[in-house]
Amino acid sequence: MGSEQAAAGRPRVVIVGGGFGGLWCARRLATAAVDIVLIDRTNHHLFQPLLYQVAMAGLSPAEIAAPIRSLLRSQRNTRVLLGEVASVDLARRQVALDDGALLDYDWLVLAAGAKTSYFGHDAWENVAAGLKTVEDALEIRRRVLLAFERAERATDVAQVEQLLTFVVVGGGPTGVELAGAIAELAHTVLANEFRHIDPERAKVVLVDGGDRILGGFPATLSQSAAEQLGELGVHLRLQARVEDIDAQGVTLADGQRIAASTVLWAAGVRATRLSESLGVPTDRAGRVVVGHDCALPGQPHMFAIGDMANLVQDGQPLPGLCPVAMQQGTYVGDVIARRLPKERRAPFHYIDRGTMATIGRSRAIAWIGDTELHGYPAWVAWLVIHLMQLIGFRNRFVVLVTWAWSYFSYKRGARLITERKGEKSLVRAAKA
Amino acid sequence: MGSEQAAAGRPRVVIVGGGFGGLWCARRLATAAVDIVLIDRTNHHLFQPLLYQVAMAGLSPAEIAAPIRSLLRSQRNTRVLLGEVASVDLARRQVALDDGALLDYDWLVLAAGAKTSYFGHDAWENVAAGLKTVEDALEIRRRVLLAFERAERATDVAQVEQLLTFVVVGGGPTGVELAGAIAELAHTVLANEFRHIDPERAKVVLVDGGDRILGGFPATLSQSAAEQLGELGVHLRLQARVEDIDAQGVTLADGQRIAASTVLWAAGVRATRLSESLGVPTDRAGRVVVGHDCALPGQPHMFAIGDMANLVQDGQPLPGLCPVAMQQGTYVGDVIARRLPKERRAPFHYIDRGTMATIGRSRAIAWIGDTELHGYPAWVAWLVIHLMQLIGFRNRFVVLVTWAWSYFSYKRGARLITERKGEKSLVRAAKA
Repeated sequence: MGSEQAAAGRPRVVIVGGGFGGLWCARRLATAAVDIVLIDRTNHHLFQPLLYQVAMAGLSPAEIAAPIRSLLRSQRNTRVLLGEVASVDLARRQVALDDGALLDYDWLVLAAGAKTSYFGHDAWENVAAGLKTVEDALEIRRRVLLAFERAERATDVAQVEQLLTFVVVGGGPTGVELAGAIAELAHTVLANEFRHIDPERAKVVLVDGGDRILGGFPATLSQSAAEQLGELGVHLRLQARVEDIDAQGVTLADGQRIAASTVLWAAGVRATRLSESLGVPTDRAGRVVVGHDCALPGQPHMFAIGDMANLVQDGQPLPGLCPVAMQQGTYVGDVIARRLPKERRAPFHYIDRGTMATIGRSRAIAWIGDTELHGYPAWVAWLVIHLMQLIGFRNRFVVLVTWAWSYFSYKRGARLITERKGEKSLVRAAKA
Repeated sequence: MGSEQAAAGRPRVVIVGGGFGGLWCARRLATAAVDIVLIDRTNHHLFQPLLYQVAMAGLSPAEIAAPIRSLLRSQRNTRVLLGEVASVDLARRQVALDDGALLDYDWLVLAAGAKTSYFGHDAWENVAAGLKTVEDALEIRRRVLLAFERAERATDVAQVEQLLTFVVVGGGPTGVELAGAIAELAHTVLANEFRHIDPERAKVVLVDGGDRILGGFPATLSQSAAEQLGELGVHLRLQARVEDIDAQGVTLADGQRIAASTVLWAAGVRATRLSESLGVPTDRAGRVVVGHDCALPGQPHMFAIGDMANLVQDGQPLPGLCPVAMQQGTYVGDVIARRLPKERRAPFHYIDRGTMATIGRSRAIAWIGDTELHGYPAWVAWLVIHLMQLIGFRNRFVVLVTWAWSYFSYKRGARLITERKGEKSLVRAAKA
């Protein structure tokens, strides 16, 4: 198809990405006199903070994801397209889609998010699974559950040990959540279900390059998280740099070798390819450097928000968190709705309402203003806040039921191993 | 690993397959003085009667599937293995697994089920999706949802029409359920969510070779089902033989061509490869012909049950239904528990407690003894019975909530398109 024109008189807003930034921007524009086209590579908005629970067989993908089209169905000025933006022509104000279709825009909001980064070690991608998409989560679930199945069939002691060793690289919130959840899975959920192996003997190692985990939190909370992980039996390897990863395990920079069949990667993300194709300044993580109005330098009608933007506030780039993206989405939607020229835009200011990380059943840390919570109160806070933020009544209710059931039964509701397409048989993968 | 021996003194029962037949057999043997090894190619028991709801984005896979290992966790005499049986050595009473491992048995229960059969047209497998596994259901969900996404991006009128035409081949219960569910999806769930296409204009065609659908039911119920499908806008093509299927549509034997991007296959199944590798008599559908005690001819310690067995009762082979497999599983478990020699076994007798098929929201047929139900009462009966039979409190409750939510909101809870592994990008698939 050729270049599509916007309806006469109404400016067209093209939003790239249906994550927290893009969706909140579109919602702010629900009643504005604009035509919106929201483009996403998937058909669903994903509640990323709970993605690790899909990877850990606690929730089903559909419980934390909803069709973008469905979320915006009543917003008549908005059209949703499943597609990928190949490039942006800043001079012509045109976006080119993957199939060559061109889309004119008057306002452009880039909110395409981030992807897992292996810091140049592309070969690690196949052996160390990242966690950014639903597919990633299902792949991790598959690998972790399959490791136990393979161990049950294995006959060699060293092999069993390798199959029951799980290394998580990266001690940020995702790494901490994954490590805690694997330990719980092995030590409570799977206990008594195998006859040849004892899942409680599974070993979980959390590797981080810093001198403490959860570096973004106060040191006291890092310490508390480390203790809570210790109670779950997770081994911490701090100040440890990963030298190499292969299908048999991890080699650290100090020469230590950890034999492990399953390695998960939570050490870094970078902006998607799109940001680097723009020809504008980006930071080391590939994020577009934007001004205080979230606009690109010299491009007052073009914004980048969320994980793909680098916006400096109080001397620091804002972190890649959902609330940042949501607040930026709303801010940019407001600028567009009010058609504010550059000089009349008040600078965006992120309001931090608190951050938290969960470690396991009844275990978490939370940092809200000056208040530091840990253990059970932090976990309850985490539970309530994440439930409230989940989109859709059904999802909230089903997740509540699923969590309550998991809590009381020590079971997980989504322990399926599904085959990957193109793979001859699940059974071959299960062979030890 | 070499040949594994059973524990001294306790006979080993090897059960192949964790479906209804295998699972019910294992459960009957829970307290018997035997060692059980249950082998399945997947890690989960699947509630097949609701699989079409996964394909139609109504339920998540985990809501109708549960880990076999978990279901049998408290049964200490039972070991569950993820694996595939490659062959059976009847003389040595040994089962060979896919990796060459050998397993001795004293009693062998084959309950490996059936797979989709294209009656020799292997090329159709890629273009006409069958519905036997969780992966099948996710693939159908992906194709159906993607067809609407592609149509929204398409610009050519004929192409849009082809993308919005869905052909279901086979007018048995699965075909009827799929056809009705696609029509509902298009005409209610997706209505108002697209801007360029009108999903209500989607066309669903149900093709069957017989002179009525649901041939196993009384003619009055077939008639009622046809009327109910008609109310949903499904087009019936009876006495129509499929001549060819390709990526663009279906050609019927009378020369008619139906241009359709999505074709679903519900026309036939046959027993898995295992049954033919045994060297014993099989019927045209590859099913092992068994005696009235479910045992193979001349093999009193070896049974075949469920979809992979042909057992003649009242002059007819029993149909491939869950209750048949369940009752046979219990029967065989009983024979083994009581170590009954061939001559003391009472013949298996299937008790038909009724069959039903659902057509859509408030639409179904049910045939229970001499009672024929259709419409709303049949649908309520269907709902209650299927909910009760679902395994696990959580699943039952979550499915109930999901159904209630779907019923009142006209939404579907699992409308995710997930990528297939090995595919470069979902977006390419979405290109019209």
